[in-house]
Amino acid sequence: MSLHVRIVGTGLLGTSIGLALSRKGFRVSLQDISPTASALARDLGAGSLDVAAAPDLVVVAAPPDVVGQVVADELAAWPSAVVTDVASVKASVLAEVQRAAVEQLHRYVGSHPMAGRERSGAVAAQADLFEGRTWVICPSPSSDDTAIDLVRRVADAAGSVTVLMDAAEHDAAVAAVSHLPQVAASLVAARLREVSDDAVALSGQGVRDVTRIAASDPLMWTQILSANAPALLPVIEHLATDLEAVRAALARVAADPPAEGARGVLAHTIADGQLGHARIPGKHGAPPTAYGTLVVVIPDRPGSLARLFHDVGEAEINLEDIRIEHARGGPVGLAELSVLPAVTERLRDALEAAGWSVHD
Amino acid sequence: MSLHVRIVGTGLLGTSIGLALSRKGFRVSLQDISPTASALARDLGAGSLDVAAAPDLVVVAAPPDVVGQVVADELAAWPSAVVTDVASVKASVLAEVQRAAVEQLHRYVGSHPMAGRERSGAVAAQADLFEGRTWVICPSPSSDDTAIDLVRRVADAAGSVTVLMDAAEHDAAVAAVSHLPQVAASLVAARLREVSDDAVALSGQGVRDVTRIAASDPLMWTQILSANAPALLPVIEHLATDLEAVRAALARVAADPPAEGARGVLAHTIADGQLGHARIPGKHGAPPTAYGTLVVVIPDRPGSLARLFHDVGEAEINLEDIRIEHARGGPVGLAELSVLPAVTERLRDALEAAGWSVHD
Repeated sequence: MSLHVRIVGTGLLGTSIGLALSRKGFRVSLQDISPTASALARDLGAGSLDVAAAPDLVVVAAPPDVVGQVVADELAAWPSAVVTDVASVKASVLAEVQRAAVEQLHRYVGSHPMAGRERSGAVAAQADLFEGRTWVICPSPSSDDTAIDLVRRVADAAGSVTVLMDAAEHDAAVAAVSHLPQVAASLVAARLREVSDDAVALSGQGVRDVTRIAASDPLMWTQILSANAPALLPVIEHLATDLEAVRAALARVAADPPAEGARGVLAHTIADGQLGHARIPGKHGAPPTAYGTLVVVIPDRPGSLARLFHDVGEAEINLEDIRIEHARGGPVGLAELSVLPAVTERLRDALEAAGWSVHD
Repeated sequence: MSLHVRIVGTGLLGTSIGLALSRKGFRVSLQDISPTASALARDLGAGSLDVAAAPDLVVVAAPPDVVGQVVADELAAWPSAVVTDVASVKASVLAEVQRAAVEQLHRYVGSHPMAGRERSGAVAAQADLFEGRTWVICPSPSSDDTAIDLVRRVADAAGSVTVLMDAAEHDAAVAAVSHLPQVAASLVAARLREVSDDAVALSGQGVRDVTRIAASDPLMWTQILSANAPALLPVIEHLATDLEAVRAALARVAADPPAEGARGVLAHTIADGQLGHARIPGKHGAPPTAYGTLVVVIPDRPGSLARLFHDVGEAEINLEDIRIEHARGGPVGLAELSVLPAVTERLRDALEAAGWSVHD
């Protein structure tokens, strides 16, 4: 008899989970405060609207503001079910559940699938949204082992890699690797409102990379940052301290160019950033990898990229990564190709022989 | 009779300029404090070591610390020549030249080719490094029109788009669009040193984008930030003020969840970032463009990208941009394809018909 999973909240995540589990033969029932939303999810193939039978597992995919209360309600409604939620912040949800349903805590295991593309709504849902992504599982000290296993089964069925962390560790982690970067991107991007059109036209790849995620939804991020305020606060304070050191060093240099010691502060800032950046895992969670990179000039004619990839394929070399930079004002772009170091020179030779202009 | 350009400092920029100009038929002479460096540049085809004859134009491509003094020396050594420099900060160089060679100021026109890949040395030089890039020209009020024209000729010959700005406007511009993003990337990346391996393993595309330029050279950036301290200081201070508002809002939410007004601060932070980000020009300096985007699941098998591009080409659709995201722990990646909005659905249909899994 297949596992019955009840999904509460059929937005992007909930519907995608429904699609993933339905595809794997789970029985999925769908619930949403909006009948239209649940009907849409059913139409997309995410499950059925038959919500009478008791589920084995409940997945709460409601907005962050209300998740804790919904989890508590579901724990009360289904005395035999395990309940998880998929909110991107965990300690605040756990605290709410502890407050509202402490007798049932053993059946609650919070989790967080780190997927989604910041688009919302069931119509954007995909069965393979979680393929290869990390699904963090955050049991509390009260969680039953069987409850943890059930949540893990769902994450496995969705194609995810599971990682166990407690709620506090999770929240501290996402504060540093997700929430602080969002705040920083928005603050840097906001400065561009104050410069002239000519100035912003000088934008290169650096500011584009730093501010890419500044095109984010204010409401969603206000919910996330608020929910994670306790974990995010120390990270923000630490960055503010470092920023003040940079400001003070710059002020000293501006006032008195010799400014002994000030340049050391600046150099350490960049060097510390280098060290931190080097900790980010390379492709597929492997240790950070030093790829060989080549930069190839791409004429902006239709089919240029296709021709490049054809020539890379002809050389029988696997592309590990590619980044495109666009040059302002001219009909060319630059493609930065990443390959295993051992094949870099062979690829350079092959591309140059095929007529490409290759930079270092 | 072809123009004679003397290049002082044969690193990446100087040698690349020599290569670009030599290719266009200019006469180029090469000078470097290291005889090996200039001989190398000569060997690479950047020009000749015959430095006896008076040049028409001198391009000073020395390290930022010494540029001003070298410009003054060159103005004195060649009484008929125009002198430019290519340092990434302009007001400090102008001030040094005004101090050391005020009588010759009319022959000095600072400039800044916004190219280069933060790699150094003549061996990385390329003749087409400046193709389609912006070359900012910063005349002082004293600069002769003929001097400005000569610098423009060199920038044109290198394939650049020229923009005129005064030195202060230039420095304020690069402070916001280049230097602040570098500082922010480094500060965010530095926080990753303080989190566990499990935590940093949760890194997604957002933090990778924000911290990509954190892998930068501390010495070079200390020089740049120091040289631009006066222009960078107000930008840093403004960001620090905004950051403090975020910190205070988070502190209020953490202490007292209702925290009236605090969420408004957070929402405005994200919204202001959205507005600033929208000012960054799209491809080729055009107004910011809303492309249609599709996300395609890429199996990590050799040739996958090539097959994707083949199928895009078969649909006769031009790819405007592509970004690859790697999913941790699984054999798939995601390719975000950007195309003109009008062809988005046609491309989706074509790719799905060819068996690709397409996300929104």
